[in-house]
Amino acid sequence: MKKAVCFGEIMIRLNPPGYTRLVQTGLLEMSFAGGEANVAVSLSNLGKKASFVTKLPDNMIAKAATRQLKAHDVDVSDIVYGGDRMGLYYVEKGASQRASTVLYDRKYSAIATADKSDFNWEHIFKDADWFHFTGITPALGDNVAEICLEACKTAKKMGITVSCDLNYRKKLWSSDKAGEVMGRLMEYVDVAIANEEDCEKVFGIKAKDTDITGGKLSSEGYRQVAEELSLRFNIETVAITLRGSISASENDWAGMLYHRGEAYFSKSYRIHIVDRVGGGDSFGGALIYALSTGYESQKALEFAVAASCLKHTIEHDFNEVTLDEVLSLMKGDGSGRVQR
Amino acid sequence: MKKAVCFGEIMIRLNPPGYTRLVQTGLLEMSFAGGEANVAVSLSNLGKKASFVTKLPDNMIAKAATRQLKAHDVDVSDIVYGGDRMGLYYVEKGASQRASTVLYDRKYSAIATADKSDFNWEHIFKDADWFHFTGITPALGDNVAEICLEACKTAKKMGITVSCDLNYRKKLWSSDKAGEVMGRLMEYVDVAIANEEDCEKVFGIKAKDTDITGGKLSSEGYRQVAEELSLRFNIETVAITLRGSISASENDWAGMLYHRGEAYFSKSYRIHIVDRVGGGDSFGGALIYALSTGYESQKALEFAVAASCLKHTIEHDFNEVTLDEVLSLMKGDGSGRVQR
Amino acid sequence: MKKAVCFGEIMIRLNPPGYTRLVQTGLLEMSFAGGEANVAVSLSNLGKKASFVTKLPDNMIAKAATRQLKAHDVDVSDIVYGGDRMGLYYVEKGASQRASTVLYDRKYSAIATADKSDFNWEHIFKDADWFHFTGITPALGDNVAEICLEACKTAKKMGITVSCDLNYRKKLWSSDKAGEVMGRLMEYVDVAIANEEDCEKVFGIKAKDTDITGGKLSSEGYRQVAEELSLRFNIETVAITLRGSISASENDWAGMLYHRGEAYFSKSYRIHIVDRVGGGDSFGGALIYALSTGYESQKALEFAVAASCLKHTIEHDFNEVTLDEVLSLMKGDGSGRVQR
Amino acid sequence: MKKAVCFGEIMIRLNPPGYTRLVQTGLLEMSFAGGEANVAVSLSNLGKKASFVTKLPDNMIAKAATRQLKAHDVDVSDIVYGGDRMGLYYVEKGASQRASTVLYDRKYSAIATADKSDFNWEHIFKDADWFHFTGITPALGDNVAEICLEACKTAKKMGITVSCDLNYRKKLWSSDKAGEVMGRLMEYVDVAIANEEDCEKVFGIKAKDTDITGGKLSSEGYRQVAEELSLRFNIETVAITLRGSISASENDWAGMLYHRGEAYFSKSYRIHIVDRVGGGDSFGGALIYALSTGYESQKALEFAVAASCLKHTIEHDFNEVTLDEVLSLMKGDGSGRVQR
Amino acid sequence: MKKAVCFGEIMIRLNPPGYTRLVQTGLLEMSFAGGEANVAVSLSNLGKKASFVTKLPDNMIAKAATRQLKAHDVDVSDIVYGGDRMGLYYVEKGASQRASTVLYDRKYSAIATADKSDFNWEHIFKDADWFHFTGITPALGDNVAEICLEACKTAKKMGITVSCDLNYRKKLWSSDKAGEVMGRLMEYVDVAIANEEDCEKVFGIKAKDTDITGGKLSSEGYRQVAEELSLRFNIETVAITLRGSISASENDWAGMLYHRGEAYFSKSYRIHIVDRVGGGDSFGGALIYALSTGYESQKALEFAVAASCLKHTIEHDFNEVTLDEVLSLMKGDGSGRVQR
Amino acid sequence: MKKAVCFGEIMIRLNPPGYTRLVQTGLLEMSFAGGEANVAVSLSNLGKKASFVTKLPDNMIAKAATRQLKAHDVDVSDIVYGGDRMGLYYVEKGASQRASTVLYDRKYSAIATADKSDFNWEHIFKDADWFHFTGITPALGDNVAEICLEACKTAKKMGITVSCDLNYRKKLWSSDKAGEVMGRLMEYVDVAIANEEDCEKVFGIKAKDTDITGGKLSSEGYRQVAEELSLRFNIETVAITLRGSISASENDWAGMLYHRGEAYFSKSYRIHIVDRVGGGDSFGGALIYALSTGYESQKALEFAVAASCLKHTIEHDFNEVTLDEVLSLMKGDGSGRVQR
Repeated sequence: MKKAVCFGEIMIRLNPPGYTRLVQTGLLEMSFAGGEANVAVSLSNLGKKASFVTKLPDNMIAKAATRQLKAHDVDVSDIVYGGDRMGLYYVEKGASQRASTVLYDRKYSAIATADKSDFNWEHIFKDADWFHFTGITPALGDNVAEICLEACKTAKKMGITVSCDLNYRKKLWSSDKAGEVMGRLMEYVDVAIANEEDCEKVFGIKAKDTDITGGKLSSEGYRQVAEELSLRFNIETVAITLRGSISASENDWAGMLYHRGEAYFSKSYRIHIVDRVGGGDSFGGALIYALSTGYESQKALEFAVAASCLKHTIEHDFNEVTLDEVLSLMKGDGSGRVQR
Repeated sequence: MKKAVCFGEIMIRLNPPGYTRLVQTGLLEMSFAGGEANVAVSLSNLGKKASFVTKLPDNMIAKAATRQLKAHDVDVSDIVYGGDRMGLYYVEKGASQRASTVLYDRKYSAIATADKSDFNWEHIFKDADWFHFTGITPALGDNVAEICLEACKTAKKMGITVSCDLNYRKKLWSSDKAGEVMGRLMEYVDVAIANEEDCEKVFGIKAKDTDITGGKLSSEGYRQVAEELSLRFNIETVAITLRGSISASENDWAGMLYHRGEAYFSKSYRIHIVDRVGGGDSFGGALIYALSTGYESQKALEFAVAASCLKHTIEHDFNEVTLDEVLSLMKGDGSGRVQR
Repeated sequence: MKKAVCFGEIMIRLNPPGYTRLVQTGLLEMSFAGGEANVAVSLSNLGKKASFVTKLPDNMIAKAATRQLKAHDVDVSDIVYGGDRMGLYYVEKGASQRASTVLYDRKYSAIATADKSDFNWEHIFKDADWFHFTGITPALGDNVAEICLEACKTAKKMGITVSCDLNYRKKLWSSDKAGEVMGRLMEYVDVAIANEEDCEKVFGIKAKDTDITGGKLSSEGYRQVAEELSLRFNIETVAITLRGSISASENDWAGMLYHRGEAYFSKSYRIHIVDRVGGGDSFGGALIYALSTGYESQKALEFAVAASCLKHTIEHDFNEVTLDEVLSLMKGDGSGRVQR
Repeated sequence: MKKAVCFGEIMIRLNPPGYTRLVQTGLLEMSFAGGEANVAVSLSNLGKKASFVTKLPDNMIAKAATRQLKAHDVDVSDIVYGGDRMGLYYVEKGASQRASTVLYDRKYSAIATADKSDFNWEHIFKDADWFHFTGITPALGDNVAEICLEACKTAKKMGITVSCDLNYRKKLWSSDKAGEVMGRLMEYVDVAIANEEDCEKVFGIKAKDTDITGGKLSSEGYRQVAEELSLRFNIETVAITLRGSISASENDWAGMLYHRGEAYFSKSYRIHIVDRVGGGDSFGGALIYALSTGYESQKALEFAVAASCLKHTIEHDFNEVTLDEVLSLMKGDGSGRVQR
Repeated sequence: MKKAVCFGEIMIRLNPPGYTRLVQTGLLEMSFAGGEANVAVSLSNLGKKASFVTKLPDNMIAKAATRQLKAHDVDVSDIVYGGDRMGLYYVEKGASQRASTVLYDRKYSAIATADKSDFNWEHIFKDADWFHFTGITPALGDNVAEICLEACKTAKKMGITVSCDLNYRKKLWSSDKAGEVMGRLMEYVDVAIANEEDCEKVFGIKAKDTDITGGKLSSEGYRQVAEELSLRFNIETVAITLRGSISASENDWAGMLYHRGEAYFSKSYRIHIVDRVGGGDSFGGALIYALSTGYESQKALEFAVAASCLKHTIEHDFNEVTLDEVLSLMKGDGSGRVQR
Repeated sequence: MKKAVCFGEIMIRLNPPGYTRLVQTGLLEMSFAGGEANVAVSLSNLGKKASFVTKLPDNMIAKAATRQLKAHDVDVSDIVYGGDRMGLYYVEKGASQRASTVLYDRKYSAIATADKSDFNWEHIFKDADWFHFTGITPALGDNVAEICLEACKTAKKMGITVSCDLNYRKKLWSSDKAGEVMGRLMEYVDVAIANEEDCEKVFGIKAKDTDITGGKLSSEGYRQVAEELSLRFNIETVAITLRGSISASENDWAGMLYHRGEAYFSKSYRIHIVDRVGGGDSFGGALIYALSTGYESQKALEFAVAASCLKHTIEHDFNEVTLDEVLSLMKGDGSGRVQR
């Protein structure tokens, strides 16, 4: 089996237990997370070989991070060591009308200050058939955008499928800057993943008749967005996650896949949320698994939506579900009956 | 007051805290549970004297288990000591579309390897007016089925009411084997308890027009099932719990009581679930309390459904509610207003 | 900025973690709470200077309590030291049909045994423009009612606005006694706050067509109650919180403000509850903030309801939300989207 | 087997985890403890039937307390219900040069406000051969001293052995008051237990050449103290615990038994302390077990010292050790080798 | 680099937090451990490639176990799946005069019921230069002893060094049986590891002038034991750990290495113990690392003693220390100064 | 009372619970700490008004930090807001031969990137009589060294006593750089505090006959060091802490004060360590308290050593002891007897 290579940042995730807030507690749960690391773990959990590539400082907290990746069978042998620090972020879990909050402390991280010379992409892509990155990675700095570009070019040259989750982060860069940099990278992308905001914020492509905060979803609008993205950058496959935020405790969750001019819509799930951070990444990971395994469009989409639906019931970013659990939900058993 | 004797296995229950999964944690909550032990605790909490009979190894973990029973005023003086080990099981609490999972490690337990000579039923049933067991106990092995049979015969001979919760466990035995063994035992049973699956799996008695995973409930179908069970084994009272699984987080919960040809249906509760493991046992315990206290059919059923509704809001298997709390819910106060 | 003075009891709050019950645990969460202390913290969190006045024993647990107040910028310099003990209470968090329970152990506390000579109100009210107390405080004993009366008189004399949350506690006094004592105090009150039960229990003023446990709310009924309260005691502003208890896990929450003959009704929120103890106090605190900041009636009410809606998503009594979060919800964003 | 009756107060014990202090934590460990309750649990753990008699409020926290007693097989059937509250205390565990601190909040407890008519001693002493109380109980108030006196008289009349641990608490009463009240009670005492301070503080009997804070112990001095106590009140057996406080982390621990004119000294243990609260009570419990089982003086003393040495390695007040563990240490195995 | 293959059982280790006992807690720490698994982790942590071979059931708790091994870079690709259950054990940490206790529940585990046909040793030993097992593994049953024998023979044939830690467990087999089985296996062993009891219990070889429980160590005695073991089975290298148990909190720790007729004694460490379970295994792991890396005898011994000294300061069985930390202690820095 | 102004960095301190290591845990304890913040808290706890001055980012984690300071009555009104992040560090608590480790992630913190224009020292020093900083602060960067210099000059001009704890951190700067920068600052210092390494590493002043890692202390050597430091920079008072590291679990602790040519040596304490991070700061804080309160040299020294001895028994950096506890230890009661 060939592997998927995921490139980006892995951060320390710190959250107070349960619904307590940072100012209320002296105890934090520590885990590790990041857009592409989450995808690598999803792939590995589902059964696709995955490698995670980043730059990490050579210290004991980075060691704890790589241990987590290794525990999930993610190949860490192409991680580069050096630099000052790992990025980190704090999560306060929201409930009902109170939104979850995420506070980043990721500036100056080893990967954000990495250099093109740190990575030998031809070596990294040996035995790979897939390359995945998100819009967060080039947003870390021009240097990292350069590294992404080189990785994309090398991947293309080596015949490797490239996927990108737009993942717009307004605290990392402006819409203008994102549009410019991402536009350059999209040329190499075969599979684009986005949520309802990303296309508008990065490329100004807007779903019609859609009120995001109100949670109103228009199928036709999303089809238009995917089509436009597909046409503009000549992208074969565009996947969009459709989140209906009823409250921080309850969401509707579905997805759309646009493939060679055809739009597929998934079943929609009403989810009682345990932890939704990492939900989008789990969609991406499952979709890559499904597409690289050869699922047809509708089935691939349903698989990705089911996997990411389950992620919302899992604590922390990594999607700790099994292939069997995803398949079972896909087949329609969401009744939550005890499995003895 | 005469006591109820409950015979079966008590196990170590281990679960990761909250919604975390086994692979995510280094911390487990330990409690003790088992179909008949849960019933004994329910009875004692509600005010009926109860004795729990089993075989346990003579070690410090079994000591921790009996301490819990004693703390609940359950008589443990007829527990027999010997054998190698206590059974145990792991629970991962599900949420939303992710089902709870239960992993058993109960083979070779002291009770599963017990011998008929370990128990002197005439002595055990002194001062008793009720004997309760579940379908799990004879499923532990032919030796245990033999013990059950002897207990049933002795109970009958001594004029003691016998109740049995079918509780089919597919990992312990096949439907065929269950049907054969349980069929023999049902001859002695006065009160049979079952859920929507048990009758079908054990005796092939099926509710019409019922789609279990879809959570659809047909009153008439259940009446037919109860009637058939009642007629086939000449059982005076048959109780069936009706669970509508909307998701692992939300269930509808109700019950039916069939008594001397008459079917009674309870109020239905929409439950936001805290922990549903042990829910069925809490129904059984409360029903035995109600019947042995002399409640009429409808009231006994409503009492049992209210008690077990509350169980779903209680962590771990034992139903830690008071008689007052059950009566209060039965009278209609399910609004959850703070009790100051 | 002038400060608000809040007078009452601060207690030790002990609760088992999550949904466990007292009999199930050897671990308690300790925090500090009390009707007026909660209001003082709300005010301070929102941006209004607040002072909390009480009597505390001079020991290490009281020191832990004042540390919490100081951490929230609440002025504790007028707290008097002496007496035997702090009051305390246990909370068991309910879920679904199981109500939360509160067990008080507050008798003989330092403030309940305080003397009029302990407090110099002219000194305490220097730099104050608001005085707040609740019906719990005079219920602690005739001595404390006397202290309240003197505080009210002094406040009136010094031109300070007086607010009172009726907060009827049936375990502290009878309706008759409450009516008599509170009636005397209401003469000095400018802003009265109450929930659906208080007016009836304390003054026999009853909302028509309202079934509390059933959660049915009648707008017209509430307007009548407020009007009668306003007229009887010549109170300019009356605020009533409207709680629809669907279950211990889910409530509807809204409010009404009656000001100079006009009744204003707020938006209603369907809340998935994290911890509702202190919910009413957070409404009071936010309302005082809004009124003393000069918000108009409708806006002040919406602000208070939004702030207290959010409180239901916060663990423990203190309302740990920010002004920005309240304003954001007020503007309509209750979708719970992650704030990155 | 006849039972030992222990009469006194059981309190809620709250302590921050590990070595944290009250002002540092929002988490408390809750257990239950009290001089005589600790003795009852020790007796039961070692194999002597024990009953604990007290007055408790009828609420859920008292229910948690009695559950703990029942879990330890302590008979709670003579506990009387009524009154306002349970006493409670906070413990901060010390280390090295920092002493452990104990803060009591026990005033107005149900037992401290109990009445002579609450207890029927002839009934309580049925099937008993031993009565134990400590100097803390009469210190709770004149009413409780009266109850103690009546219990002593009844015990004497019924031929029951009476033991008393002097346990002087300076926060409960003065030396003068203690001397007067305890003097009256000692007339009925057969076995007196004390530590190095008690005899001096209560009866002015002082060990010569002993510097308590310095931890210097003089065998001859202790013999004199015991002899004087024995002669003054005609007490057959006097036991004194000898604690050498090196620091809050390390103590020397030994004991002396004076029986009919003969003084016996035990082996001394150098203890690395886990939790020393309840250490004296565990000595008393083990001594009563040993004496009532018929051990000779030297052996009884060594047993009591070994049992209480082990208590110092146990968290919370109750001495959770087994008879086998005590006997094993007594025989000399204190090397702490792993028991597999 | 060639790898070391470790063969044996990995179990679930459950222990109450800190110094609490099983009967006191509802919370358990879960980790994974076993004589040979501990050695494999030590090797990997120090820098030697290691593979762990066993049989595990195919369930989620075994998955958690292999995740831990993978996190430590231990090769798990030769683990065989099947059988009923994983063995488990409970540890209560002792302190001072109270010994740690270990309660095993390991009967009927997958590895204990494994068959010779489960393992293909020629395949397993590809790329290996070392084979390690302990006396626990053949003690699991005649079938497992057979597997060990075959592994030993294959290793010998393939020129692989074989090491064995005698690790006598009296609960698994008698001295007679152990002597017989182990005697047969020792023929293939190049490096034997033992503690002060093993040689005597398994082969009747006894150190002269040594009182184990008293902690007295005689250098000459140990040399004699090693020499006799070496001669009897023609073993080139014999290592003995020397533990002086002062108490459960404090131990002296040293080692002896006997190599080709020469005895080497290490420095002795006075250790303040955090967790000593797994201490012997960490000695074995470090010794194998040192010998396979080519350290000379004295240095290899000092390295192994230093590494295992540090293990006593680490919670759980796995020795979570780095090569640098071991080398630093070996060089003499045991002062514990903060490393910033 | 005039206040002491402390200037420096406050960081987030993250440590795994107990003796676990970072790679072993998913749970971290969060507190806040920093050389000068620790001193400010010590001063406030002992009774001296203290203000802490720094630059912090305007986010929720900094809010949690200032809450802690306010809870301790430390004036935070001169803290400046801006910049990217707070520094943070990880602590692994050592035991026995395993040293505690500290891993810093403090680069690019708000204070490290602060500008001279951020602080108005004339305003800050209003109502102050003391200024304290440590060698860590100027080591953060030339910009911060500049700020320190300006603060020192202003303090001098305003007649404020200046104290500095050398606190050499080799990871922040070289000895050469430290010597140069600190040399310039020492001109303004009235009270210098150092440990056994600082003088040598910063100024090349070395205690004769002292082996630090071996824990050997030479009184005469320390006197010489202090004298030389005093003479070189014309410093009136030099205090040196003397730590004898027996192991990570046990230290000897004492101090020396050199004042106007006279050397004073304190009592030495053998400490069983709970947490030694912050020990030096607690010495500094207590010394400043003692000197500014007018204690004579010997008494001031004994006070500072007693306070910092107690700190070693307190979890986290802040010295949570009271004035009474310090005075009591100073008077000689280090026996650790329970304070009831």
